[in-house]
Amino acid sequence: MGMANTMSPRVDFWYEFASTYSYLAAMRIEALARERAVAIVWRPFLLGPIFKAQGWETSPFNLFPAKGAYMWRDLERLSASQGVAFRKPDPFPQSSLKAGRLAWTDQVAPYRAEFSRKVFLAHFADGRRIDDDAVLENILASLGLDPATVMAQSRSEQVKLRLRQETEEAMRLSLFGAPSFVTADGEIFWGNDRLEAALNWALQER
Amino acid sequence: MGMANTMSPRVDFWYEFASTYSYLAAMRIEALARERAVAIVWRPFLLGPIFKAQGWETSPFNLFPAKGAYMWRDLERLSASQGVAFRKPDPFPQSSLKAGRLAWTDQVAPYRAEFSRKVFLAHFADGRRIDDDAVLENILASLGLDPATVMAQSRSEQVKLRLRQETEEAMRLSLFGAPSFVTADGEIFWGNDRLEAALNWALQER
Repeated sequence: MGMANTMSPRVDFWYEFASTYSYLAAMRIEALARERAVAIVWRPFLLGPIFKAQGWETSPFNLFPAKGAYMWRDLERLSASQGVAFRKPDPFPQSSLKAGRLAWTDQVAPYRAEFSRKVFLAHFADGRRIDDDAVLENILASLGLDPATVMAQSRSEQVKLRLRQETEEAMRLSLFGAPSFVTADGEIFWGNDRLEAALNWALQER
Repeated sequence: MGMANTMSPRVDFWYEFASTYSYLAAMRIEALARERAVAIVWRPFLLGPIFKAQGWETSPFNLFPAKGAYMWRDLERLSASQGVAFRKPDPFPQSSLKAGRLAWTDQVAPYRAEFSRKVFLAHFADGRRIDDDAVLENILASLGLDPATVMAQSRSEQVKLRLRQETEEAMRLSLFGAPSFVTADGEIFWGNDRLEAALNWALQER
């Protein structure tokens, strides 16, 4: 018989809407999780305050040009191999504050994964600006939500606080980049290329 | 018939003796390259001057503590899964200048891969200091070389210049970290976890 295990395997997917590698992870995480029967919790947060805390005023890909040039080429190769469209956002990075707050509204909550993929595609495949209300309102409407209601809700103190708390939790976990994957026993895996390792760890930890 | 292709696939393996992920790559690159019949050129260089050029006086793993803590845990997991021993060097990082110069002597050249693996194992498996002449002399002796002769040669102007030229070439290629893998057509892959992608690219480019 053995001991019954009531915990189903779970991975928290920490992502940032302005993060290139978060885009790639968002587009493939659900299929890989389904194969392994691992539950994914979608947790958008803001990298800006974390970068600021270590003295960076913009993306490290802008601060370190050689690394940035590499990243854009790497993204071209990876998106081609993954079969997703990719174009470099202009400007980069864009503020992900509005998208992050929207993701944490009660109305978007049941659709958070789908909302997030649509924001990522608008940003990294279609060249739209994710700090543009019209772009976000279109996405909300495509989910069958009332854009005006949800936009207003995203500006409430409750939702602002929620996103702030998520970012503080990311700092408490010592996350320093996105995407990061965190298992129920607290193992952290950083980067799109560690997604499979995180899912496999979640299966083994039970 | 098709056109004869006289180029055999090749990947330049750029590594730094003080780099943790270079250690993991060095221990697995030859087996993976052999499977694919890709030739590997071992090219040790110094990251220090590259870090300095972007304002870093030490390893980014020391400058950014959250990233550093993650890296040490990541190394524990990866080395266990790869089946190689690992312990955190003390201090970290250590100067790789002596080891780098030795690797570029004429005497070590025919054994550069083996010499490099031995330096990495001394450093990351056995907890030895790679800035210690005695440690390096032992490695030279284990290769059947005369330690005194090779140590003297490593301090010649010719060898110093060679290592400096390699590091300048790494900068010219815009390498910013180690390990990096560069294919004959100039594609750069950064990080131990991109080793397979680099080898596969080298096969396709012919």
